[in-house]
Amino acid sequence: MPYFDAASAAPLHPTARQALLASLDEGWADPARLYREGRRARLLLDAARESAAESVGCRPDELVFTPSGTQAVHSGMAGALAGRRRVGRHLVVSEVEHSSVLHTAESFEAEGGEVDRVGVESTGRVPAQAFAAALRADTALACLQSANHEVGTAQPVEEVAEACRAATVPLLVDAAQSLPWGPVPGPWSLLTGSAHKWGGPPGVGLLAVRKGTRFAPRGPADERESGRAPGFGNLPAVVAAAASLRAVRAEAEAEGVRLRELVDRIRLRLPELVDDMEVVGDPVHRLPHLVTFSCLYVDGEALLHELDRAGFAVSSGSSCTSSTLTPSHVLRAMGVLSEGNVRVSLPHGTPATDVDHFLTVLPEAVRAVRARLGAPGAEPPAVEEALVVDALGRRCPIPVIELAKVIDRVPVGGTVTVLSDDEAARLDIPAWCRMREQEYVGEEPAVRGTAYQVRRRV
Amino acid sequence: MPYFDAASAAPLHPTARQALLASLDEGWADPARLYREGRRARLLLDAARESAAESVGCRPDELVFTPSGTQAVHSGMAGALAGRRRVGRHLVVSEVEHSSVLHTAESFEAEGGEVDRVGVESTGRVPAQAFAAALRADTALACLQSANHEVGTAQPVEEVAEACRAATVPLLVDAAQSLPWGPVPGPWSLLTGSAHKWGGPPGVGLLAVRKGTRFAPRGPADERESGRAPGFGNLPAVVAAAASLRAVRAEAEAEGVRLRELVDRIRLRLPELVDDMEVVGDPVHRLPHLVTFSCLYVDGEALLHELDRAGFAVSSGSSCTSSTLTPSHVLRAMGVLSEGNVRVSLPHGTPATDVDHFLTVLPEAVRAVRARLGAPGAEPPAVEEALVVDALGRRCPIPVIELAKVIDRVPVGGTVTVLSDDEAARLDIPAWCRMREQEYVGEEPAVRGTAYQVRRRV
Repeated sequence: MPYFDAASAAPLHPTARQALLASLDEGWADPARLYREGRRARLLLDAARESAAESVGCRPDELVFTPSGTQAVHSGMAGALAGRRRVGRHLVVSEVEHSSVLHTAESFEAEGGEVDRVGVESTGRVPAQAFAAALRADTALACLQSANHEVGTAQPVEEVAEACRAATVPLLVDAAQSLPWGPVPGPWSLLTGSAHKWGGPPGVGLLAVRKGTRFAPRGPADERESGRAPGFGNLPAVVAAAASLRAVRAEAEAEGVRLRELVDRIRLRLPELVDDMEVVGDPVHRLPHLVTFSCLYVDGEALLHELDRAGFAVSSGSSCTSSTLTPSHVLRAMGVLSEGNVRVSLPHGTPATDVDHFLTVLPEAVRAVRARLGAPGAEPPAVEEALVVDALGRRCPIPVIELAKVIDRVPVGGTVTVLSDDEAARLDIPAWCRMREQEYVGEEPAVRGTAYQVRRRV
Repeated sequence: MPYFDAASAAPLHPTARQALLASLDEGWADPARLYREGRRARLLLDAARESAAESVGCRPDELVFTPSGTQAVHSGMAGALAGRRRVGRHLVVSEVEHSSVLHTAESFEAEGGEVDRVGVESTGRVPAQAFAAALRADTALACLQSANHEVGTAQPVEEVAEACRAATVPLLVDAAQSLPWGPVPGPWSLLTGSAHKWGGPPGVGLLAVRKGTRFAPRGPADERESGRAPGFGNLPAVVAAAASLRAVRAEAEAEGVRLRELVDRIRLRLPELVDDMEVVGDPVHRLPHLVTFSCLYVDGEALLHELDRAGFAVSSGSSCTSSTLTPSHVLRAMGVLSEGNVRVSLPHGTPATDVDHFLTVLPEAVRAVRARLGAPGAEPPAVEEALVVDALGRRCPIPVIELAKVIDRVPVGGTVTVLSDDEAARLDIPAWCRMREQEYVGEEPAVRGTAYQVRRRV
């Protein structure tokens, strides 16, 4: 099943798996202890830190491991803001930052801080000059992502970092999306990342704080990880994270070129294949593996389900797919269409044939959703109004399983008829309908066995 | 190599390893996503939560997974204190809580809160009545561990929980050490645990907040885990944690009886095998697998190294083994000897032969360390009425060794004054007097360090 949602979580890289297994045996003890198991754990931790620091482009003593990218952002921002409290209580962020940055900004505001949110162009790109213009004498911290997680647009981080240095304001770069592709250039002061975005295991983030950056850790004291990430470390996962970052970096150049071509194929072909759709995000300054588009007259959640049925895992920034029923703040900031929104982010190693297959499946999926919604100009749905499932000779629970397998293949209002000669079906099919909130129409004798009719309601 | 430091981190339980491997393949995706991989991850997460909740003795919707036990304590205390801010700003803890509790108490104090620290008996046990007496009308939260992590003493949690309920004060129980052995009884309100203490992987803690407990999550907003544990969850580790908790619980009764006998063997035999040593902690109300003892005239770090060379991994609460050069706050609160301190905590499955081997190795190790330090032997005494020993600049256990060397050189009724600037001396000189039935007169500031006066009684 093609998984096209690497920007949410990448499948575990083989190197990560291998390193994790090895360090489960070698690295479970407390690295602070004096005995052999502890010293061995300490060696593993030190080696992982050196390796990760090299990948990030900082010194090992500038880098700590956190339990997630989100916690790296929370700790990094809170520590930098507290460290420069005397300078001022002003924070600059872009409007399209990850929610972890924006939520920290909100809680900073709630504590009396002042926040400037710099807007973006319709491509999702932050104008470097506008960002620089927001810096003030009392700015304690500025935050800019290296590339946007929803639309893939790369930000002018190097230029902004230079501007921040000139203004003596520390810049925190959320590099979660770009770190697998290369180090972040420029004189940034803090940097955060998240291992499960590059094929490392979940449970590992990283926070780099360059020497000379004022930093005052918040929260209760803890002696681990320079006081910047409390709690017993997740050493096996840390080892796996560092090893896989190194591994994906070794493949990054070649794989970047290859995925960029696949994404270009999607960017070019989709508007030809689907009417009323819009590819969003910067076509040039962008992550190699990510493309986002929106389709008019399409319910994002229904489209996700349609694609899921066709075997494709993608994500969406449409309002119907979020718990808050509001569209993605990124699409809103860009001022682009949010309905029928799909983000495709290709994991390393995605074969070209999967992308080609996607290009044949998507137009059908969009058509099906539009037809169900009675969208203007819709064609008849690519689904059948009535299906017959032959479960003759199959025993409980197979008839019900077969029914459950196909119910989604008829539209709401359509029917599925199950042919069965198993007595249990007489009891179990109506029960399934009750539990699943489907309509049980009734039964009638068939040439062999009994025909049970079910009408799809949900 | 016998590993006797399960209370720091238990080796991965085979069930944990198996579950971790399986869920690396099945559970890497984002459980919040709608596609198949996401739904599969969600099913795994829900099942893990149900299983862990059953082990804890709470409802699944009362339990969240955190990145560590420390973070569970930080979040749990901060959330409960904030949730009852209007009731008051008073916090009750015991003096022997884990550092994560005490550090949170300190940061609460720094923000203007008031903290009462309830002392313990010499066994390390908190008197339930004294704890109850500390509760006030403006007490926002009380915290008591289920069992002590350094000396294994079980606390009267059920009684204290009843007292808290009567006073309508929520009780947070740090159950990190006892959770592998059984659920915590009584009407507690919050409970925390840590998977790597029961053979689960590192990177997983748990926080239960019973319905009806006022709770206001702190820090930036995050939609995961009821807002109580920000960041992308570590699902494979969570699955492994829940599975291994269930597995160790299935073995807990039989294994508890077996390890309790092995620990009793150590408690009984050691004082026969080694002179001038003290087994500390409650002999009855205790964890089954943990025993702590201190040895006079022994440097804890040297003893750890000696045992490590002999193949035994143990831990110590002596000042010379900590980065702060202060003895364990637990031993200090109990008022017992801290020098030459060793904690033995047996992992599940420890063979009896390992314990017997330890009982042959330890006396040799103690002898070797004492010989190197020139501990008191049979030197002919010379008589003076009052002696001053200058131990300035010398670390534990040298000040006590110097005291012991000269005590026979004053007549009964005469005094020895020890000048020391080592923090451990404050605990260890009175403890030595108690063990030797000498009189501890008291301490007073000296030109450098502190003067500790001892009167010879025997």
